[in-house]
Amino acid sequence: MRCALITAVFSSLCLGAAAQGAPEAEPLPGRITQTVDMLIEQGLADDIGLQFVEDLTTEVGPRLAGSQAERRAREWAVAELRSLGFRNVRIEDFDIPFWSRVTDTAHVISPGQQELVITALGGSADTGEGPIEADIIRFESMDELRAGFESDIRGKIVFVDEITIKTQDGSGYGLGVRKRRECAPVAAEKGAVGCLIRSVGTQPRRFPHTGMTARPDGEATGPLPAAALSPPDADQLTRLLERGAVAVRLNIQTETLTGVPSGNVIGEVPGEQADEIVLISCHLDSWDLGTGALDDAAGCGIVVGAAKLIDALPGQPKRTIRVVLYGAEEVGLLGGDAYARQHSEDLENHVLASESDFGAGRIWRFQTRFGDGALGYAAAIQKILAPLGVTAGDNNAFGGPDILVLARSGVPVVTPGQDGRDYFDYHHTPDDTFDKIKPDQFRQNVAVYAAFTYIAAESGWDFRKVAEPEEAE
Amino acid sequence: MRCALITAVFSSLCLGAAAQGAPEAEPLPGRITQTVDMLIEQGLADDIGLQFVEDLTTEVGPRLAGSQAERRAREWAVAELRSLGFRNVRIEDFDIPFWSRVTDTAHVISPGQQELVITALGGSADTGEGPIEADIIRFESMDELRAGFESDIRGKIVFVDEITIKTQDGSGYGLGVRKRRECAPVAAEKGAVGCLIRSVGTQPRRFPHTGMTARPDGEATGPLPAAALSPPDADQLTRLLERGAVAVRLNIQTETLTGVPSGNVIGEVPGEQADEIVLISCHLDSWDLGTGALDDAAGCGIVVGAAKLIDALPGQPKRTIRVVLYGAEEVGLLGGDAYARQHSEDLENHVLASESDFGAGRIWRFQTRFGDGALGYAAAIQKILAPLGVTAGDNNAFGGPDILVLARSGVPVVTPGQDGRDYFDYHHTPDDTFDKIKPDQFRQNVAVYAAFTYIAAESGWDFRKVAEPEEAE
Repeated sequence: MRCALITAVFSSLCLGAAAQGAPEAEPLPGRITQTVDMLIEQGLADDIGLQFVEDLTTEVGPRLAGSQAERRAREWAVAELRSLGFRNVRIEDFDIPFWSRVTDTAHVISPGQQELVITALGGSADTGEGPIEADIIRFESMDELRAGFESDIRGKIVFVDEITIKTQDGSGYGLGVRKRRECAPVAAEKGAVGCLIRSVGTQPRRFPHTGMTARPDGEATGPLPAAALSPPDADQLTRLLERGAVAVRLNIQTETLTGVPSGNVIGEVPGEQADEIVLISCHLDSWDLGTGALDDAAGCGIVVGAAKLIDALPGQPKRTIRVVLYGAEEVGLLGGDAYARQHSEDLENHVLASESDFGAGRIWRFQTRFGDGALGYAAAIQKILAPLGVTAGDNNAFGGPDILVLARSGVPVVTPGQDGRDYFDYHHTPDDTFDKIKPDQFRQNVAVYAAFTYIAAESGWDFRKVAEPEEAE
Repeated sequence: MRCALITAVFSSLCLGAAAQGAPEAEPLPGRITQTVDMLIEQGLADDIGLQFVEDLTTEVGPRLAGSQAERRAREWAVAELRSLGFRNVRIEDFDIPFWSRVTDTAHVISPGQQELVITALGGSADTGEGPIEADIIRFESMDELRAGFESDIRGKIVFVDEITIKTQDGSGYGLGVRKRRECAPVAAEKGAVGCLIRSVGTQPRRFPHTGMTARPDGEATGPLPAAALSPPDADQLTRLLERGAVAVRLNIQTETLTGVPSGNVIGEVPGEQADEIVLISCHLDSWDLGTGALDDAAGCGIVVGAAKLIDALPGQPKRTIRVVLYGAEEVGLLGGDAYARQHSEDLENHVLASESDFGAGRIWRFQTRFGDGALGYAAAIQKILAPLGVTAGDNNAFGGPDILVLARSGVPVVTPGQDGRDYFDYHHTPDDTFDKIKPDQFRQNVAVYAAFTYIAAESGWDFRKVAEPEEAE
């Protein structure tokens, strides 16, 4: 407790949960620490990563998974990585089910007529050939919907008005996502004809927030038409319902296909021990409403910028740095799954993995998921990052959505935790555009990624290391 | 200069330009000042005005001039004013040209394909039966467009990228409006096929900002298709143009009619001297994108709330308080013009007029436009308002858009100046919704309106009063 308090004030003096009682790592050689200092300085002055974000969001714009725009993004990224001098630049293909909105509108038709600002959720079913019209039934939460009676719900459009809580670490999003995924299947079971949710985002503005609803594996759509209302429209619908019955016309038309090509774009800085991989990643696809600047061109710019700084050093790193720009993350982490399948023989050689997919806010915490014999390495890296304003996190790192499956296979992962207090104000909305990136905060990310990636590539440390029995007692 | 400095700090001690050298007004009787104190206290606790705003924006929603929704708003307002106990509640009809958007979309088609977030400007011409496709030519300002060569512009879509400056008094809006009005006619003269402007609003968000473009008197549309880009889309277009030629597909389809009914809704608190009118007003119509909460349901709630407080006092006021909810303000101040025409015989009896049409921000300044012999009255009112955080303004009040024509006819007007630093972040965008009203700031407005309206009705003061020759020297 005391340590936690001190950590908040002097993070460099107190190394957090991960390091508690951990054996000290062997000190890094001076040539490594000096290079890390230089990389941090260069990262804080980054232009390559930021330019990558500007160019991707400007020249390609939105990049819906499976769309022609995602294909253009892959071609663009291959050309860009080659032009930056990365080696082994390639696309690793895979197929996905494709879902795209064609029309998504909602109007109150009684009492009076007025438009509601909505967006269809990814995987939403169509409303048939044209719109549906039905009364609204409102629930405060998914739990209340689950407890609702079929006799009240049948034939109606369900409205789940649960709010999303703003947090620094993004943990409020989990509950929101539950509502987004489960509203349609639960409402369908009770005979509803459609589902509207209060947007999962935290924005107070009149933007709706898209994202996937649940759909069966391999299929393009789920059981019901499902859409998110902007927060002011959710409030408006609630106020109207306080005054009496409300009927809504909902029109959702989509284009769906199966077996559509997507792919992961890969570039490398080959190491002396070429088959030992330090993987840093992001996802290249985005939702269609904004230009996917925070989610996740920023992550791609951060890892490309960091890897490029290391590539510009004289000589080769010991281990290979592999930059992976995953495809089709937004529609079910399909790029991450494909990578794990395509590299299943090779996962033992992945010495460390990380994904940047939480915007471009300042990194405030560095979590790891290492073997218990490698906690000293965590502490050593955390100590180096502390002057960048990064506190030491625990050893329960998530890693990132596309590397979940790697983490589950035992690949050590780190989560450089970004400050996400305003991330869900923009994420998955039309307002996720380039102007939302704060250059100084973005550059701190590049510095952090360059530092830990270089240490992982150059130190020779084994992050899987299991504590020896006598040490563990 | 010194006085201005002191004014900022101790506004109650120094009465501003309007009062400089003005003869002191005869002191108000104690029964008036005591009643004013009570009205201020009640205004600061107002619920009637705020409920009016909530109900209008919820139950009617957007109220485009000439639409069925504006008609519903009039019927709603008549019922509401009657239910609040106002007398002589009526609609004064007039006809207007009607313009409504049906489709307004824009896409970059080269290089690549991506959507731009736009809104057609009111009075925009159609793009014909379907979309037009043309190269973009960008200008930093209207002056640069005016200086442009027809040979460069002919056949292209003009893009004017002038920004709007944020100010407390809204003065930055004037330049923006110039761009919105004049882009289409100036571009048309030089052979352009369309006009895009950076939104006039100050919002950093991805909302486009609508409003009128110039059109000939009495006609529904101007010379060219004209639309506003959201600020992030204006930035995106600029970045694309930095990289080379850009072609855009613009599709604007509208519905237009002439001779469509609109109307002003009027309610009164009759005075003992029934034909002496203190007019306080707002406009009932709104743009179609939001629910017209700040623009201008707020203004209507403020004047209705203030008038209702006075009506609830025992006995009649000396003069009649007339509340006017103008129609069709947004499309050319047509309600204000109609009122002045319909009451042209009667304008001499209007002792004072004001319109609240600048949102619901705290009132920080009280300007007047009185006869030079009535400046002591201005000072007396300003002194009473000072404890509410209101500084003394000059004698050049604008009054409000719908009472411009009254002011020009010599009716004394006041402008209780609201703090508009964030007004143009919401105004004319989809984000102008009820949640943007800050109740405490709104209630301070009700208190200010109740105070000066009561004084104007009860004091018997003549705000037209001309200084006698010996006083003027």
